[in-house]
Amino acid sequence: MKKKEMIYEGKAKQIFKTDKNDQVIVHFKDDATAFDGQKKGQIAEKGMINNKISNFFFKLLEEKGIKTHLIEELNERDSLVKKVDIIPLEVVMRNVAAGSLAKRIGLEEGTPLKQPVIEFYYKDDDLGDPLINVSHIELLGLAGREELERLIALGHKINDILVKFLKERNVDLVDFKLEFGKTAEGEIILADEITPDTCRFWDSETKEKLDKDRFRRDLGDVEEAYHEMYKRITGQDWK
Amino acid sequence: MKKKEMIYEGKAKQIFKTDKNDQVIVHFKDDATAFDGQKKGQIAEKGMINNKISNFFFKLLEEKGIKTHLIEELNERDSLVKKVDIIPLEVVMRNVAAGSLAKRIGLEEGTPLKQPVIEFYYKDDDLGDPLINVSHIELLGLAGREELERLIALGHKINDILVKFLKERNVDLVDFKLEFGKTAEGEIILADEITPDTCRFWDSETKEKLDKDRFRRDLGDVEEAYHEMYKRITGQDWK
Ligand SMILES: Nc1ncnc2c1ncn2[C@@H]1O[C@H](COP(=O)(O)OP(=O)(O)O)[C@@H](O)[C@H]1O
Ligand SMILES: Nc1ncnc2c1ncn2[C@@H]1O[C@H](COP(=O)(O)OP(=O)(O)O)[C@@H](O)[C@H]1O
Ligand SMILES: [Mg+2]
Ligand SMILES: [Mg+2]
Repeated sequence: MKKKEMIYEGKAKQIFKTDKNDQVIVHFKDDATAFDGQKKGQIAEKGMINNKISNFFFKLLEEKGIKTHLIEELNERDSLVKKVDIIPLEVVMRNVAAGSLAKRIGLEEGTPLKQPVIEFYYKDDDLGDPLINVSHIELLGLAGREELERLIALGHKINDILVKFLKERNVDLVDFKLEFGKTAEGEIILADEITPDTCRFWDSETKEKLDKDRFRRDLGDVEEAYHEMYKRITGQDWK
Repeated sequence: MKKKEMIYEGKAKQIFKTDKNDQVIVHFKDDATAFDGQKKGQIAEKGMINNKISNFFFKLLEEKGIKTHLIEELNERDSLVKKVDIIPLEVVMRNVAAGSLAKRIGLEEGTPLKQPVIEFYYKDDDLGDPLINVSHIELLGLAGREELERLIALGHKINDILVKFLKERNVDLVDFKLEFGKTAEGEIILADEITPDTCRFWDSETKEKLDKDRFRRDLGDVEEAYHEMYKRITGQDWK
């Protein structure tokens, strides 16, 4: 598949046209940002690791009946995916209080939630990706009522699958962010990525952070955390 | 009805015990606060005006079939009400973009909303009354699913009644906050207050603000706005 011109450059990935109108190539960069882009840096080989991890998760989810955008991995940093119209919502699933949820509702970070929490954030960099509710989503026309029900059901199903998979690898899935998109045929499928950039992974015993929070919060050993997650997920050493 | 000891002192009102276990007296103060209590002041005779305005609205709503806590006005600043367990949610109804909604979703203040928006804020001063969603409400056990449906239906019905009433008096009901409570019998009724402290009222023609935003934003003529709203709502001059 030929990589044609770049059509979007985001904070962590680039999107390229291909010969086919309904397919794009996702290129994973080493760039890392935090706090709405205020903090910037690089994580060595992150792009390669995230490409592999995301594709691993997407294949796992496909096996469990979740439709994703993944077509095939092309090389270390590039994957061919179905082009979708991204629904401008970050769907966040949470199993343990951390980050903004801990602050918002006054729970100590690390408190297990007695049921998974789902949140929608409006994907809008200028507004700082604010939390919004169903009423806002309807007003803005970001998704219809049935589509929302679908996103909620998919969010919970994906959460169940990933929690179980990771638990067996001694990792607590604290929370993570999903993006969905619509194909030309109007089907809602999972898009974007599932990686240590977009998830909070904690070692089940030590509660050590194995994700982008090491970069956000300057905890050190950032690369090591990505390597460790690569190993726990795929069962293979990173190089 | 005898006014016994004070059981709660809030930012704008005091609550007193009475001879009856299931009734309390609400006393309206002139105190005004803004920005989570950071800004403090007084608005002359506000307590008296708000007592009258709130009771006027509650009677209007009762006539339209909405159950409220109001039993009777006792004197200029005091009203006898049914004691309820307040559901710790601020139910906010919005018809025009203003305040935090305008900021959150990037609409210019004054933009009419093509449908009313409903929001729930967690009534918790320490947390700064954060916006929360249905998933947070369920996690925290603040209201059951059926109760929430009821709050949503009541919020919309009250909004419809008040929008219509005020429009005929040349006032746009931009947004307002409701609090509901449960009686000992488990019935959900409207409680707290509906006043220029808890609503945004704009003159329909000039869009002049006739509410607590005059205090919040130091616009001057604060008392005059409360007098004007008293007049438009009751049809009588304030003293
Ligand atoms: N299958 C897809 N089709 C089209 N766009 C996609 C697809 N998957 C992800 N995207 C979008 O491509 C961009 C990926 O780049 P990224 O660096 O994550 O951007 P951002 O900085 O906006 O998060 C995102 O805007 C994402 O929504
Ligand atoms: N019918 C009622 N029964 C019991 N409590 C009530 C009733 N109506 C209102 N309240 C509560 O009484 C308090 C009124 O005081 P207020 O000054 O508004 O307090 P706050 O500073 O918490 O907003 C609020 O906490 C409100 O929830
Ligand atoms: Mg992204
Ligand atoms: Mg109050």
